[in-house]
Amino acid sequence: MVSKVIFGRGSFNQLEDILAPKRLNVKAPFIYFVDDVFQGNDKITSRIPLGYEDEIIFVSAADEPKTSQIDALVEHIILKFKDRPSGIIGIGGGTLLDIAKAVSIMLTNEGEASDYQGWDLVKNPAIYHVGIPTISGTGSEVSRTTVLTGPEKKLGINSDYTPFDQVVLDPELINDVPKNQWFYTGMDCYIHCVESLTGTYLNAFSQSYGEKAMALCKEVFLDNTLDKKEAQDKLMMASWHGGMSIAYSQVGIAHAMSYGLSYLLGTKHGLGNCIVFDQLEEFYPEGVKLFKAMKLKHNIQLPQGLCKDLTDAEYNTMIDVALSLVPLWENALGPNWKKTITRDKLKSMYSVM
Amino acid sequence: MVSKVIFGRGSFNQLEDILAPKRLNVKAPFIYFVDDVFQGNDKITSRIPLGYEDEIIFVSAADEPKTSQIDALVEHIILKFKDRPSGIIGIGGGTLLDIAKAVSIMLTNEGEASDYQGWDLVKNPAIYHVGIPTISGTGSEVSRTTVLTGPEKKLGINSDYTPFDQVVLDPELINDVPKNQWFYTGMDCYIHCVESLTGTYLNAFSQSYGEKAMALCKEVFLDNTLDKKEAQDKLMMASWHGGMSIAYSQVGIAHAMSYGLSYLLGTKHGLGNCIVFDQLEEFYPEGVKLFKAMKLKHNIQLPQGLCKDLTDAEYNTMIDVALSLVPLWENALGPNWKKTITRDKLKSMYSVM
Repeated sequence: MVSKVIFGRGSFNQLEDILAPKRLNVKAPFIYFVDDVFQGNDKITSRIPLGYEDEIIFVSAADEPKTSQIDALVEHIILKFKDRPSGIIGIGGGTLLDIAKAVSIMLTNEGEASDYQGWDLVKNPAIYHVGIPTISGTGSEVSRTTVLTGPEKKLGINSDYTPFDQVVLDPELINDVPKNQWFYTGMDCYIHCVESLTGTYLNAFSQSYGEKAMALCKEVFLDNTLDKKEAQDKLMMASWHGGMSIAYSQVGIAHAMSYGLSYLLGTKHGLGNCIVFDQLEEFYPEGVKLFKAMKLKHNIQLPQGLCKDLTDAEYNTMIDVALSLVPLWENALGPNWKKTITRDKLKSMYSVM
Repeated sequence: MVSKVIFGRGSFNQLEDILAPKRLNVKAPFIYFVDDVFQGNDKITSRIPLGYEDEIIFVSAADEPKTSQIDALVEHIILKFKDRPSGIIGIGGGTLLDIAKAVSIMLTNEGEASDYQGWDLVKNPAIYHVGIPTISGTGSEVSRTTVLTGPEKKLGINSDYTPFDQVVLDPELINDVPKNQWFYTGMDCYIHCVESLTGTYLNAFSQSYGEKAMALCKEVFLDNTLDKKEAQDKLMMASWHGGMSIAYSQVGIAHAMSYGLSYLLGTKHGLGNCIVFDQLEEFYPEGVKLFKAMKLKHNIQLPQGLCKDLTDAEYNTMIDVALSLVPLWENALGPNWKKTITRDKLKSMYSVM
């Protein structure tokens, strides 16, 4: 679990005080990975406490993070700085947070990032790493995974060393998220809740977190009782609790199929989840009904026809990725999931997306 | 925050696997502090994985933990073992968990436990410590405090080093709690929620945890929909979320006054909270109404007349302890709390308990 967290509007201003005691020496920099939408945005960049050899690396979140990208970032840091960094700070959405987590792991573990995709493969503790979300929903700020697209698969580095040492939850930072992105990413949280709460892996621990995240999602996306600030505060907490819920249970069908879309087409995770979940009435009737109500309320039009021109080989690639995520299918449908989920079934499900 | 947690019926059996990688060497023992109600109880003691020089120390939870008790336990460990322990494991309720936390801190920090009562006074990280609750409600398993009665005050050691490194939440362990104790300790959680949710320190982080804990308390203590195992699972999670809620906000009047009772009369914390809270309609009307309903439902008779024979000097002692807990009063009543809470007012409130 995350060791330390602070919450509050304006808490981003405490970053200097948080980091100062963690500086190993003047040659050991803090490296900030920052979403490049903030490049030139003084409201964010001027408040990043740079000293000595500290560096900001702006990264585009247009694409899902890749193992090769992590390897390149780690190489850049090793070549540029004589000393191991004092810490890695991720500022952004799930993509930036996952990059920060993965780089902090790969700075202390040999080989390539793709070697560690899976469960509990990481050998050495990561260096100190801090997560500061600027969009809410993925739960990356609290989860024990960092989801990467590798040469062979899209799969997380799931380990006890993955979670952040420190998280800063400042709801002011999610103020300027564009509406579509706000919805897609928030729905990532909502879908986590549905998948966790209806899954066979559920236990009272995950249930309590999932129920709270679900209640908060409903307040934010369905009810009309919150002002803008309250809605931001609560969405940030929904993401946190949703992330905790799946940390101790598992996601399900939307995530398995969405990973296939992302791997083949580069579809962003939140959007991919929405496109898939919209078609899953058969498996999550109540959850999908509510999802459609939220989509309608916020006048969201999902892209259509993503799969209409795909070749059989492309379908097979997506299906291979989706089927490889065995724990997700087991969680959704139990140990006999293969009776329901055949390659033909998956193809017909993808074909309407 | 707690770094690692496992949850599940029977998860206590994983203790050996959890501790093995943490053993520093064969001369560095694991020390288990275990509630002495389990002495001779094979269901618990036979499952404690003793090796090398590991030791079980049975401790009575009849009295609230004292700073002098912590100092004596630390001295015993230092004199008996050449090497610093590999870890401290607390197995029991709030008393045992707080003892485990405090001893793990005092093994690496000079002086006496009373030197560290307060906020953020601890200088060095504690040694590895594990909490295993066998009764639920206090939130000690998740909190950043260890509440001790010292020569001058009852006050916690609140620090970033206080929380457990590992918690094992096994709802089977709370199976044999006597009914009164189950109620008093569960109500500690309920009162945390009321005090946190109505307090001026509240934020969306604490609110989300407090609301969930409150909902779980209602399920466990008011509704009739849960079977015994579900109720145990949910009470364990209520305590967890209630503890998280106050970790980032604060408790209130019931705790401030209950600390006075405990200091003077040795009243156990859960019972003391119930006795005080039962008289706080003026400050927590909704919360007290629900509390009385739960008391009635479970046919609980609270002791009466605790204060009827106290001298003025004794009243003054209680009032001094209660008034010293400034953050609790501020949380409950805001910065001008002294206008409402005079010494006379407190005396009249105590006099009916």
